Amino acid sequence: MTNNVYKLIELTGTSSTSIEDAVQNAVARASKTVRNMRWFEVVETRGAIDGDNVAQWQVTLKIGFSLDDE
Amino acid sequence: MTNNVYKLIELTGTSSTSIEDAVQNAVARASKTVRNMRWFEVVETRGAIDGDNVAQWQVTLKIGFSLDDE
Amino acid sequence: MTNNVYKLIELTGTSSTSIEDAVQNAVARASKTVRNMRWFEVVETRGAIDGDNVAQWQVTLKIGFSLDDE
Amino acid sequence: MTNNVYKLIELTGTSSTSIEDAVQNAVARASKTVRNMRWFEVVETRGAIDGDNVAQWQVTLKIGFSLDDE
Amino acid sequence: MTNNVYKLIELTGTSSTSIEDAVQNAVARASKTVRNMRWFEVVETRGAIDGDNVAQWQVTLKIGFSLDDE
Amino acid sequence: MTNNVYKLIELTGTSSTSIEDAVQNAVARASKTVRNMRWFEVVETRGAIDGDNVAQWQVTLKIGFSLDDE
Amino acid sequence: MTNNVYKLIELTGTSSTSIEDAVQNAVARASKTVRNMRWFEVVETRGAIDGDNVAQWQVTLKIGFSLDDE
Amino acid sequence: MTNNVYKLIELTGTSSTSIEDAVQNAVARASKTVRNMRWFEVVETRGAIDGDNVAQWQVTLKIGFSLDDE
Amino acid sequence: MTNNVYKLIELTGTSSTSIEDAVQNAVARASKTVRNMRWFEVVETRGAIDGDNVAQWQVTLKIGFSLDDE
Amino acid sequence: MTNNVYKLIELTGTSSTSIEDAVQNAVARASKTVRNMRWFEVVETRGAIDGDNVAQWQVTLKIGFSLDDE
Amino acid sequence: MTNNVYKLIELTGTSSTSIEDAVQNAVARASKTVRNMRWFEVVETRGAIDGDNVAQWQVTLKIGFSLDDE
Amino acid sequence: MTNNVYKLIELTGTSSTSIEDAVQNAVARASKTVRNMRWFEVVETRGAIDGDNVAQWQVTLKIGFSLDDE
Repeated sequence: MTNNVYKLIELTGTSSTSIEDAVQNAVARASKTVRNMRWFEVVETRGAIDGDNVAQWQVTLKIGFSLDDE
Repeated sequence: MTNNVYKLIELTGTSSTSIEDAVQNAVARASKTVRNMRWFEVVETRGAIDGDNVAQWQVTLKIGFSLDDE
Repeated sequence: MTNNVYKLIELTGTSSTSIEDAVQNAVARASKTVRNMRWFEVVETRGAIDGDNVAQWQVTLKIGFSLDDE
Repeated sequence: MTNNVYKLIELTGTSSTSIEDAVQNAVARASKTVRNMRWFEVVETRGAIDGDNVAQWQVTLKIGFSLDDE
Repeated sequence: MTNNVYKLIELTGTSSTSIEDAVQNAVARASKTVRNMRWFEVVETRGAIDGDNVAQWQVTLKIGFSLDDE
Repeated sequence: MTNNVYKLIELTGTSSTSIEDAVQNAVARASKTVRNMRWFEVVETRGAIDGDNVAQWQVTLKIGFSLDDE
Repeated sequence: MTNNVYKLIELTGTSSTSIEDAVQNAVARASKTVRNMRWFEVVETRGAIDGDNVAQWQVTLKIGFSLDDE
Repeated sequence: MTNNVYKLIELTGTSSTSIEDAVQNAVARASKTVRNMRWFEVVETRGAIDGDNVAQWQVTLKIGFSLDDE
Repeated sequence: MTNNVYKLIELTGTSSTSIEDAVQNAVARASKTVRNMRWFEVVETRGAIDGDNVAQWQVTLKIGFSLDDE
Repeated sequence: MTNNVYKLIELTGTSSTSIEDAVQNAVARASKTVRNMRWFEVVETRGAIDGDNVAQWQVTLKIGFSLDDE
Repeated sequence: MTNNVYKLIELTGTSSTSIEDAVQNAVARASKTVRNMRWFEVVETRGAIDGDNVAQWQVTLKIGFSLDDE
Repeated sequence: MTNNVYKLIELTGTSSTSIEDAVQNAVARASKTVRNMRWFEVVETRGAIDGDNVAQWQVTLKIGFSLDDE
């Protein structure tokens, strides 16, 4: 088992449809600048309300990625 | 930026289908008596089990609404 | 109201599709060896990333079940 | 299983005798204005000291009640 | 020592100048509809940023008030 | 000092009379299948309400027991 | 309102009978060396088990006392 | 509502005068390299003492900024 | 770097004007009996309300001081 | 990626020498009755004192193991 | 089982070599002025960095000691 | 005392030998791209199990570094 070092970044993904979609949006956006992403942890789930409806899911998550190629 | 004051109320929404639906049910029910709802925060996710199935999602959330018209 | 005693066990269910499915998988698996399950509480939501996608949802939950028939 | 929505309110009950009595006092007082109370959760236990004695138990609890008749 | 029961409500006060002012604004606004307020507890301190400046302090607090005259 | 290993299990004891009785009920029930119990820690105190009364105390606790005879 | 300064000390009181008695024992013991005690907060409730019984309640609390005469 | 993704960074701002000033210093410093900052959350408030005085306020905060132009 | 040992004490400072002043009051009061104070951490911010005004800020903090001269 | 279900158990390992050794003792003891252990999480680090020395490290950890062969 | 009362004090021990050594240093230092120490709990693990090395381990712990001879 | 601003980054260091070594590996790796590192805080200690042995220590920590030369 190689002793890699990982960095964690914190993002808030948003979606008008679901918690899962908000997380996926954050992961996809992060992949534009970060390589070697391995795991995520949901930190907080919030959202915006418009009238009597949930208008947006806002999910804060941490993403861990390897600082070294594996 | 106007310095409004917001009140937070805590609700538990339930649904037999999903976490998102439980939250939406709570928001819709609150809208019958509360105006100017702006945001929510999920506090706890629990549920009931019947046999070998999740029978109900029970999601506790806080809802923030403006005490003043905006 | 009978004064039953309940035991809580902690499981991590996984799913490639959703948080709800990961919880359901854990409940279904537990039902093979545990009877009288009553409720669950989500403790943590994590997951694995593959490239720019969420590859797996990993949801840790506690399940409460009655130690006595009801 | 009907998908009711519940509201949680937070109270501090007090008693000179016990934690249980402080909770009961809060529940009894709430019942004057709230119907359909279902459960409570103890949030904090504090108290006042007079000389070398506990003079008052102050127990903060959340009470959940159904917003719909059941 | 009379065994009063207290209710706690949760508010977010805002201010463009300071944390103390945001709390004071919430207390003053609550006093329009609530009597017998006794204490508060700061729960969360957030804010909005505009350019390179703090534009607004948003302080969430709980306020405890007696349900009975004292 | 022998370096034993202990296991912790989590139970919810219930009682219509007191928190202490709910804990004692859980400990007594656990003793039917677990030996060498040493300590407990209260994790959560909840309960059921019937009308204007506390109908049941529900106390979740962890119990630690030695995996080895001492 | 005088702007006193208070000190908090942390104690674990024990009792073979109840949580309340364990707290009272800690307060009474503290009063031998500390004056002007005003309030306490329960931090943790644990205990010892002997066979199938709770043998001792161990309650950790903080006690606040004024550093100045009032 | 556009589904932006936000990144959160964690900073400790310092000031010899106030908590608000320490937060403002962190926001101003961050603005040198980060655009589109939207909100902050105070995580921790500490400080240094010199003799009998607070010598420095050290406030740790998270700042959220949009990864996309809005 | 000398390996000193530090002790932490917990105090509640009060002030009718600000959070900072409440902390400063606690530090100043502690300096009457404690030497070598180095840092503090804010633990809780509460207060008293009189009518529609914040009457007193009550800030609980931990103060760390060296047990050895440096 | 197979969607396994994992169970978490909580143990307290002890050692007179180090935190790492206490964890290793718990893992080794658990391996006598549990197969397919995958990961652990340290929950709490405590210990016993004898005179002026640490006499025993007591580390509570959760161990996750697969309920299915992989 | 005698119903002793215990006091908890909070210390930060430091060491250039290990977490265990930092705890041991705190226990040894405390033994100069405190008798009847029984247990400790690690509260926080921090440290100082010098260049690319950990220069010092700073471990905050609580120590419980009996206020009565046993 | 200069009012510097510090940034905190979160890393997971790994090691097959000890918690201290995992932290040191993270600090050493971070030093390749970050200057002026001052302190760290351990956030979480986890690990991987292989058979009946701890195979890897995985320690998540925050590292604080000055954004300005000192």
